[in-house]
Amino acid sequence: QMPRGNLETVHHRALVLAQIRKWLNSCLYREAFECMRKLRINLNLLYDHNPQAFLDNVDLFVRQIDSVNYINLFLTEIKEEDVTTTMYPTHSASSVPSAQKSGAKKVDIICDVMRAAMEKLNPQKYCLSILTSYVRKTAPELETALQKVHELRESPPSPDAVSAEEALKYLLFLVDVNELYDHSLGTYDFDLVIMVAEKSQKDPKEYLPFLNKLKKMETNYQRYTIDKHLKRYKKALEHLSKCGPEHFIEFLNFVKDQNLYTEALKLHPVGSSEYKAINDVYGEHLYSRQHFEQAGLAFARCGSLEKALDAFVACSSWQHIVSIASQLKYSEDKMAALARSVSGKLREQRKYESAAVLLEQYAKDYEEAIILLIEGGLWEDCLRLIYKYNRPDIIETNVKPGIIEAKKNYMTFLEMQKVTFIRYKERLSVVRDLKEKARQGLLDDEIPGGLESDLFSDTSSVMTTSDMSGRYSHSNSRISSRSSKNRRKAERKKYSLKEGSPLEDVALLEALREIVRTVDTMRSDVNSLLKVLVLFLYDTDARELQQMYQEFLQLMEVSIQDIWVPCAPPNATLPVLGPHSTANSIMTSYQQQRNLKTAEQETEPFIAPKLSKTIQWKLDLLD
Amino acid sequence: QMPRGNLETVHHRALVLAQIRKWLNSCLYREAFECMRKLRINLNLLYDHNPQAFLDNVDLFVRQIDSVNYINLFLTEIKEEDVTTTMYPTHSASSVPSAQKSGAKKVDIICDVMRAAMEKLNPQKYCLSILTSYVRKTAPELETALQKVHELRESPPSPDAVSAEEALKYLLFLVDVNELYDHSLGTYDFDLVIMVAEKSQKDPKEYLPFLNKLKKMETNYQRYTIDKHLKRYKKALEHLSKCGPEHFIEFLNFVKDQNLYTEALKLHPVGSSEYKAINDVYGEHLYSRQHFEQAGLAFARCGSLEKALDAFVACSSWQHIVSIASQLKYSEDKMAALARSVSGKLREQRKYESAAVLLEQYAKDYEEAIILLIEGGLWEDCLRLIYKYNRPDIIETNVKPGIIEAKKNYMTFLEMQKVTFIRYKERLSVVRDLKEKARQGLLDDEIPGGLESDLFSDTSSVMTTSDMSGRYSHSNSRISSRSSKNRRKAERKKYSLKEGSPLEDVALLEALREIVRTVDTMRSDVNSLLKVLVLFLYDTDARELQQMYQEFLQLMEVSIQDIWVPCAPPNATLPVLGPHSTANSIMTSYQQQRNLKTAEQETEPFIAPKLSKTIQWKLDLLD
Repeated sequence: QMPRGNLETVHHRALVLAQIRKWLNSCLYREAFECMRKLRINLNLLYDHNPQAFLDNVDLFVRQIDSVNYINLFLTEIKEEDVTTTMYPTHSASSVPSAQKSGAKKVDIICDVMRAAMEKLNPQKYCLSILTSYVRKTAPELETALQKVHELRESPPSPDAVSAEEALKYLLFLVDVNELYDHSLGTYDFDLVIMVAEKSQKDPKEYLPFLNKLKKMETNYQRYTIDKHLKRYKKALEHLSKCGPEHFIEFLNFVKDQNLYTEALKLHPVGSSEYKAINDVYGEHLYSRQHFEQAGLAFARCGSLEKALDAFVACSSWQHIVSIASQLKYSEDKMAALARSVSGKLREQRKYESAAVLLEQYAKDYEEAIILLIEGGLWEDCLRLIYKYNRPDIIETNVKPGIIEAKKNYMTFLEMQKVTFIRYKERLSVVRDLKEKARQGLLDDEIPGGLESDLFSDTSSVMTTSDMSGRYSHSNSRISSRSSKNRRKAERKKYSLKEGSPLEDVALLEALREIVRTVDTMRSDVNSLLKVLVLFLYDTDARELQQMYQEFLQLMEVSIQDIWVPCAPPNATLPVLGPHSTANSIMTSYQQQRNLKTAEQETEPFIAPKLSKTIQWKLDLLD
Repeated sequence: QMPRGNLETVHHRALVLAQIRKWLNSCLYREAFECMRKLRINLNLLYDHNPQAFLDNVDLFVRQIDSVNYINLFLTEIKEEDVTTTMYPTHSASSVPSAQKSGAKKVDIICDVMRAAMEKLNPQKYCLSILTSYVRKTAPELETALQKVHELRESPPSPDAVSAEEALKYLLFLVDVNELYDHSLGTYDFDLVIMVAEKSQKDPKEYLPFLNKLKKMETNYQRYTIDKHLKRYKKALEHLSKCGPEHFIEFLNFVKDQNLYTEALKLHPVGSSEYKAINDVYGEHLYSRQHFEQAGLAFARCGSLEKALDAFVACSSWQHIVSIASQLKYSEDKMAALARSVSGKLREQRKYESAAVLLEQYAKDYEEAIILLIEGGLWEDCLRLIYKYNRPDIIETNVKPGIIEAKKNYMTFLEMQKVTFIRYKERLSVVRDLKEKARQGLLDDEIPGGLESDLFSDTSSVMTTSDMSGRYSHSNSRISSRSSKNRRKAERKKYSLKEGSPLEDVALLEALREIVRTVDTMRSDVNSLLKVLVLFLYDTDARELQQMYQEFLQLMEVSIQDIWVPCAPPNATLPVLGPHSTANSIMTSYQQQRNLKTAEQETEPFIAPKLSKTIQWKLDLLD
């Protein structure tokens, strides 16, 4: 008989729902409620049917229902779910706008308006329902509920009102006793705590000593202890900060233990001694996490200059280093030694300009500074120092050989890049042809397979970018910093340049793009080398370099249109410039592309790189 | 009767051409030639029919034709045109590969092989045809032809050979006499000149005194004079450079007059006194053309230090300026004044770092240097100098107010950019909706027009980027340099932001892209400002700025996917990652796009900008 009964119910329910909707539209809440309760219709419908109407008539609702039990039932059954779309969908487009503005949750909205209505009508009568409305909130307001119970005990409003005892029992029925105990502790109200504790299964020998100990404490320290016990560390910190200087050591330890440095800083006036002490421990924390620069700042803020210096040295923040060393009144010798050591580190990081400033101005070692600038290819700075310190001899001994060396390195580098560029470009055209043939072959059903293996048959070997750029890392000029960057970049590549790999063409596009980018960004470096070559009368070398670079740039410019498809707005069959079509093509592709989001990062190799044609690097002098 | 005759000829020709082709295929050149001559078939066909066969059988061809006149006729009629594709196309796919390799021209190839064949067979007999083969070259070798004539006169090979007289007459029939005279002069052979001159209409009273004057000159100077007369300036310069130091003034003037500086430099050994003098005049030329930096280099190369200094000052090349001033042994006062003035210019160009180095190290004005660094927002450098020169007082008087001012400027700038960003973004969505509606309207044929005017009806006004960024140009911090760049950029914009303009959506995309780019590149500047705010305990300000910037970056990141369509490889309907499809989709779109090249520059606004997420700008300290 079950199936038959079920079918009956289903059929029945459609009619019932129609009736309930009628009642709700006429604000006959009592009728609707009774019917829904009997036939187990989800009570959320009372609200979901027309949220705005419910909110407008909540007083009427409470008055009609007129039952603490019913209201508790309703509040307990409320969920975020909208049953008009899930359980009881209607096909008539009622389109009642949702009342949920400002991101507030349905449950919270209902609890709050119901409570307000009940408080207005009869707070004593609806006492338990009001408690329910606190407990049911998405973030249950247990403290407030407990406070209500406490009020009942302190000043019972009338003999027929709900007793504190009853209210607490009801709360314990809704909420786990341990949770309620913790929250009662969180009100810092010991009467309340004991009231709850008595209702619990807890052993008074356990909680009474603890409560007695707490009672003896100074208020802020007491609250800190409770918060800490409840793991409310931020609140605990706040209370502890009010306990005065005698607890400051404990405060600092607590900050360290709980990693609450930024919160701690906010609790003390900027510039106070406590503020400084917190910065100091924060600095140590940041240092241990290897956030050296921020550690340095934290130490510097609190005047821990030695520690700040250590931290700044660890991250080679050279300006801070010498600033702090000056504040520490370093002797000239000590400063020179420091500058020399930091300069060495900066040199390793190829920060030649800063390294040279340190040597020149803090170690007073002009010669070494000049040699560093030569190593870094910073010719103009290097000449400036040579003439500033009247050391023209260095021009013959170091600058000229340095220039010639740099020019050779540039030539070799450009030559290698060019060879690779041409090889990749040719290989790309081979791969494209093969794939096109394979496609046609598959379409014609003539060549059933084996064409893919043709991709392996071409024996011209393709070096990977990382192989190639690795060769230059011995050089000291600017090029090597670039090529070591390339190497790191190459290691991140997603596609394989290995012959016959399925996306070899994409890998080739990527590699070609990288070469174009690298060579294109050399414009100003080449220009600066050309100028110094010309200044020292190395016209032939300069002309060679200018021609080599010029030809390579031209080769790239001509090749770009063969290698890269111009990336028009997708859906390029629509005219691009018509007044309507642009928005349409965007819209269309937009919708098409939504699901292709993962393809987004794959597009970069397909976009033609742009040459920085506006940068003037050539010297007319050499034409 | 004309039309009828014409028709006959046309019909006839098809048959004739078939016969000629047969003859040519059988190497029956004489038959083919006679027939073509009679029926006025273009003689180029002899070669074009099968270039390789012609080249292989050129000896046979000459022997069969066996007539100087015929060969001259043939050589005179040869043109670059391929008559098998233009005048006498054949439909049978003969597909004879063209013999024109290595870019050599057809005319030149034929002239050269014909001459070689004739020289081998009978140079005396074919004398005139050989001359023709020189004259007919695309760059006529008139000197060589004249030389041949000269040889005939000097040593007539045999009595029955063509006389020099005859040969010259023939040449004059082919080439204009004045041109021939000039070329004879260009051989520097006066006998030849007089021989040609005698045949011309020239008055001996005119040319003889000139020739006599030339004859008296030293060989190189004579050749220089001739070259100059013939306007062959580069050759003239070369000969003049060999005339010794007494002609060097003339050389320099000639270089200046003809603007042959780089050629002149190549003619003298690097470092010679002539080389230096050329650099000096070249420097003046470059200076007058406002190429100040290269002018400075040219002057510096030849030791004209004062002039070099002027030139470098004109382009604010500050390192060169102080280098040269040092070489000129400037007094401390003079150096300070120079440094101060250059520093002022650099400040105007917002090159604060260099400006400060000049003030610090060459004007010894530490205070001004520090104040410049504050103005430029270069906080770490500024603190370094403050401690280096022990001026902590400046921290209170200038640094702290400067930091607070900079923070305010950043906040205002970010706020304005954010407001504009949101306004543009909302307007973009409105424009897209309107265009979509307009499109659907047009498709449904319901709304015949007037929807376009809806684009004008929305009254929310959209400020242009240039209006907006103009507001910030009063500020001295780094922002203003950026916004003035924006303004210049905005002025270059191709699309109008005016409401209802046909490509308003593209203009909005461009403007939005520019805002994203600008705000994104502020990361390291914001970071550096945050650090100095924290260092001087302005935690609240720092936190405000960090939060503001953070929220804006998040807003942009979330908005980018709504604003920009991911730019997938065109033809996105094919699977992007399949092993074959990538190459295919590239190929397909490649062919589609070839004719859409003009659309290439329009694509930029459609490509989503990328945020530099790898740059760490946030301070944990402020969280």
